[in-house]
Amino acid sequence: MSNTNKAVILLSGGLDSTTTLAIAKAQGFECYALSFDYGQKQKSELKSAAKIAKNFGATQHRIMNIALSDFGGSALTDANIDVPEFKESDDIPITYVPARNTIFLSFAMAWAEVLDCQSIFIGVNALDYSGYPDCRQDYITAFEAMANLATKQSVEGQKLSIITPLINLNKAQIIQRGLDLGVDYSITTTCYQANDKGEACGFCDACEYRKLGFKSANIKDPTKYQ
Amino acid sequence: MSNTNKAVILLSGGLDSTTTLAIAKAQGFECYALSFDYGQKQKSELKSAAKIAKNFGATQHRIMNIALSDFGGSALTDANIDVPEFKESDDIPITYVPARNTIFLSFAMAWAEVLDCQSIFIGVNALDYSGYPDCRQDYITAFEAMANLATKQSVEGQKLSIITPLINLNKAQIIQRGLDLGVDYSITTTCYQANDKGEACGFCDACEYRKLGFKSANIKDPTKYQ
Repeated sequence: MSNTNKAVILLSGGLDSTTTLAIAKAQGFECYALSFDYGQKQKSELKSAAKIAKNFGATQHRIMNIALSDFGGSALTDANIDVPEFKESDDIPITYVPARNTIFLSFAMAWAEVLDCQSIFIGVNALDYSGYPDCRQDYITAFEAMANLATKQSVEGQKLSIITPLINLNKAQIIQRGLDLGVDYSITTTCYQANDKGEACGFCDACEYRKLGFKSANIKDPTKYQ
Repeated sequence: MSNTNKAVILLSGGLDSTTTLAIAKAQGFECYALSFDYGQKQKSELKSAAKIAKNFGATQHRIMNIALSDFGGSALTDANIDVPEFKESDDIPITYVPARNTIFLSFAMAWAEVLDCQSIFIGVNALDYSGYPDCRQDYITAFEAMANLATKQSVEGQKLSIITPLINLNKAQIIQRGLDLGVDYSITTTCYQANDKGEACGFCDACEYRKLGFKSANIKDPTKYQ
């Protein structure tokens, strides 16, 4: 049994996960960044993720290929479903990707075990978000409990923690935190349908929450729009 | 909210998962079989899975490509680690693949949600097995609890069940159950290092438990050995 200061960081290349990486780094973790080409329509976020991992001195950045688009059922992966414009609603939007965070966290678990690492960071937040069920603290707590019954590491007494530094922050607070830690938000990609140059559409849910975040933090929005 | 008689069945092409598919079919489920090319050294089991899915009239059989071999750390996926011969031990063997069942179940969850399906079958059993932590009932129960907080389906009041019909059966009982349901075990592949013709090595853990199962059930072993 050993304890390391390694952490696996789920890094999409967006505003939240980039801030999460910055926080993990500032806390002294040796960071292993994990991204996914899961069949998302826009791949600009993966280019952003690579730049960000490098900027923050991640020890390694890995992009796993998993074709969630084979299942479809989401506007982010299914060619037959358009990304809608933002509108206020209590419904879970069509941009929800079935089991996405569970799949991402499962791969992070696997890598963490091979690395002999006890910490996984994920940038979920339960304010200023689209109501995805797998962004709530109850879900994360249940995932952590499951993970601690699943692995050889857990049987040997090493606890795995799922760390969610943004869970109770609003978008403006996240941005302020990131700026304090030196994040350059101009290279992050948040938009659900960014073009190949990484330019945002400006009207999807993800763009809307991001724009409101900069406005509310009273920070000039560095996002490049189409 | 709707209820369907669809089920996603995790199908490796081995003895346990094949019996599980036969049980699900016998219970009247419309079966969607899910297999993984996860970088396992032997791919014969995937050919077996395809035949078995066809034999049991699975509505669909999907093989997902996920390169768990990129992580390594297991004799089943890492070219630098040999599959050992069977020996009695309380340790979790080097054939353990970090987070494998969690990853497999996560993909099953995703597919189940897209299919509007409330049942996932997995052929784990906690007797006559190698002591893998992610084969125990406690683990499965925790996964199910997590899954029921993770999805849009769960928020809408549809419960997902993880069904483990083999959990308390020994290998001989599993074989007897399968034979009663018409399983042809000669086309299943259990061996950790079967060759391209699907012939088993006869001395790894998986072969050992399988051989003992046929012996103890007093059934002629139909396995083809190298």
